[in-house]
Amino acid sequence: MTQLEAARNGIITEEMKTVAQDEGIDAEMLRELIAEGKAVIPANPGHTSRHPYGIGESLRVKVNANIGTSPKNASVEHELAKLSVVEELGAESIMDLSIAGDLNSIRETILAKSKMLVGTVPIYQILTENQGDVKSLSVKNLLDTIQLQGRQGVDFITVHCGITRAALPLLDRRVMGIVSRGGSFTAKWMKYHGKENPLYEYYDDLLAIAREYDMTLSLGDGLRPGAIADATDPAQLHELKVMGELTQRAQSAGVQVMVEGPGHVPLNQIEENVRLQRELCGDAPFYVLGPLTTDIAPGYDHIAGAIGGALAAYYGASFLCYVTPAEHLRLPSIEDVREGVVASKIAAHSADIAKMNTKAWEEDREFSEMRKAFDWEWMYGHAIDGRKPRRYREESTNYDTEECSMCGEFCAMKLQEQSERAENEIERNNII
Amino acid sequence: MTQLEAARNGIITEEMKTVAQDEGIDAEMLRELIAEGKAVIPANPGHTSRHPYGIGESLRVKVNANIGTSPKNASVEHELAKLSVVEELGAESIMDLSIAGDLNSIRETILAKSKMLVGTVPIYQILTENQGDVKSLSVKNLLDTIQLQGRQGVDFITVHCGITRAALPLLDRRVMGIVSRGGSFTAKWMKYHGKENPLYEYYDDLLAIAREYDMTLSLGDGLRPGAIADATDPAQLHELKVMGELTQRAQSAGVQVMVEGPGHVPLNQIEENVRLQRELCGDAPFYVLGPLTTDIAPGYDHIAGAIGGALAAYYGASFLCYVTPAEHLRLPSIEDVREGVVASKIAAHSADIAKMNTKAWEEDREFSEMRKAFDWEWMYGHAIDGRKPRRYREESTNYDTEECSMCGEFCAMKLQEQSERAENEIERNNII
Repeated sequence: MTQLEAARNGIITEEMKTVAQDEGIDAEMLRELIAEGKAVIPANPGHTSRHPYGIGESLRVKVNANIGTSPKNASVEHELAKLSVVEELGAESIMDLSIAGDLNSIRETILAKSKMLVGTVPIYQILTENQGDVKSLSVKNLLDTIQLQGRQGVDFITVHCGITRAALPLLDRRVMGIVSRGGSFTAKWMKYHGKENPLYEYYDDLLAIAREYDMTLSLGDGLRPGAIADATDPAQLHELKVMGELTQRAQSAGVQVMVEGPGHVPLNQIEENVRLQRELCGDAPFYVLGPLTTDIAPGYDHIAGAIGGALAAYYGASFLCYVTPAEHLRLPSIEDVREGVVASKIAAHSADIAKMNTKAWEEDREFSEMRKAFDWEWMYGHAIDGRKPRRYREESTNYDTEECSMCGEFCAMKLQEQSERAENEIERNNII
Repeated sequence: MTQLEAARNGIITEEMKTVAQDEGIDAEMLRELIAEGKAVIPANPGHTSRHPYGIGESLRVKVNANIGTSPKNASVEHELAKLSVVEELGAESIMDLSIAGDLNSIRETILAKSKMLVGTVPIYQILTENQGDVKSLSVKNLLDTIQLQGRQGVDFITVHCGITRAALPLLDRRVMGIVSRGGSFTAKWMKYHGKENPLYEYYDDLLAIAREYDMTLSLGDGLRPGAIADATDPAQLHELKVMGELTQRAQSAGVQVMVEGPGHVPLNQIEENVRLQRELCGDAPFYVLGPLTTDIAPGYDHIAGAIGGALAAYYGASFLCYVTPAEHLRLPSIEDVREGVVASKIAAHSADIAKMNTKAWEEDREFSEMRKAFDWEWMYGHAIDGRKPRRYREESTNYDTEECSMCGEFCAMKLQEQSERAENEIERNNII
């Protein structure tokens, strides 16, 4: 039974109990949200080392980080080092996007090590094994690969089921065309074979596999806009509409499902993008990649992504895929991974604050109280990333404990304390 | 005659012409906005090296960077190096917050070098000269310092006129109290002397000096919230209301005026903060410090500030004061200055895009076209900061020109091109 089927049958699973406790919400309420498809717990029983996390309505916003080998660095140790950084910074999910080395063995290693959710994009394995050749890819090949990954314990998979032949002519007007690897390969396959998207055509077979392993589907937006000029265009909306239908079919089959979203989106279109997804996909959790609010900041796309991600999450997106400073440029280094996770955590937390999440508010209040008390060690231990502020302070010399080295002796808080002392003195003098 | 007085008299000044041309808007429309106090051109005629920039309604969002000496580094060369970085990255304004060395001479040097607007916080000079001692500060001393800075050519000054005795009891409920240095010192002075804020009491004298040099007033928010828990509280709103009255008095006296804003503000309160400022201050330009959307990200406050700044600017703030990664920790290094300016530029540009600024849209469209064409050199030349993407690409090895090293051979755009070629081949075969 999947978490969705259990929820519908009135069963509160162990995973639901854990998630409800972590979030500080009622387990019965969570069960209802899952039954309605408004929340998911991607928890493949085959992933034995995992801690369950919920994604969706009334839950804190979650963060995913992409890792994975490449032909230039196929070392699994390097990826495990990234995994540690991601976990240490408090992200809840990683996606293994490996495209070099023994993919099945790398995935097995990552699944064994990760307490976080583990997601994949199965088409990447096909791409790697077929070296991007569309001729030799068969539907059976595709479904077998997905089955294999489900058996291994993958918690959720990105599947580009929503890109159909009808959408392709809509791409002609775009500046950037298709910017999703999976979407691009799928379109290439469809054009070459003159057939419909196999994951759309054989969606029921896909659902049967997903249900077998309670592997949550993440409907990938192969037609997401890759430029501000392409945002919220007919191609993107065509795919979103198809994904809305597929969401319903997945839920009817007892399969948990999320929907992926853009991409590059101007700030003023983010609310509408989230509203449309909720309307078309019946409030299924929205998993956004950014969105980036400008195209012109390569090297700093984690910042553009944090702006868009915070706003999307405030309006209702539940899951943020991180963007690193290396986006559009190269594979992320471990330092890039760190910067990317921190930026997304800031976005997610800012949205939790804005949505009046009690725990998030408590965290900020306590942090500010400790800031006022100049308790630096406590702050290092509770900041989103404590390593950097510690380094910053240790690099700067000759500071008192009771001031930060920014304002130094003219620290507002110090002046305030002196002022309070002076006031007390005046009061004492008046009494005398 | 100040820019405001000229505008009211129907005169389009040279500065208005330049600004209108740079912005691609009608000069007569700009004159009207200035006459109504909805836009300002801080342009002290004594600052001879400057290029004029407009701040306010219908104009692109502007960015300020704070620089200035400290007891730990009083070298003016170091500050000039920061100035170069700020100017190179396209910010429009710097504030000289020096508190060590020969302040008058440092300011003169900065004014001579800067094409950007130059702002100051005159109280910092007093604080430095009096070593934070409130006893010896006289009103004459304060006004003389402001006069001196006006004569030197300072374009705008932050003056904490809005913090009054009536507001002080409202601070008791706060987690962080006062976090503004100027605000804290002013409160200390008021408490010690048992008197009203001298800049509030002698506001007409201040206006006379500002008018003489067409030095724009930036009404400092000495009571800005320094914690999420303190946002939009009675103390902040009390000061904002007073600043609304002072805005009107400045405009009546022919003095250009902006209003400074918070601080630490949850995402969901930003729109309301901007709306209140516009309502209470008659649409005078809003100059925001962040706002930071969470307290728990020291070391990355430039990211929290970019989220808040983008949103504030989208809702109507006109001027963003940068926040660097060093905020709350230490004085910013040159690298911190760079990171801070870039983050604020991303926020400002994202807001310009969201407000449908034609030039901003053209910039993103052209950038994406060049990205599709893999024209890396063009992108380095037109990115917000080209140095970092260049370094990222150069550090990664063995990449083709026609792909980024992130996706490598599975680049979506490359697959797309192959796909288009395949399609053309099929079409040719069909013809034959």
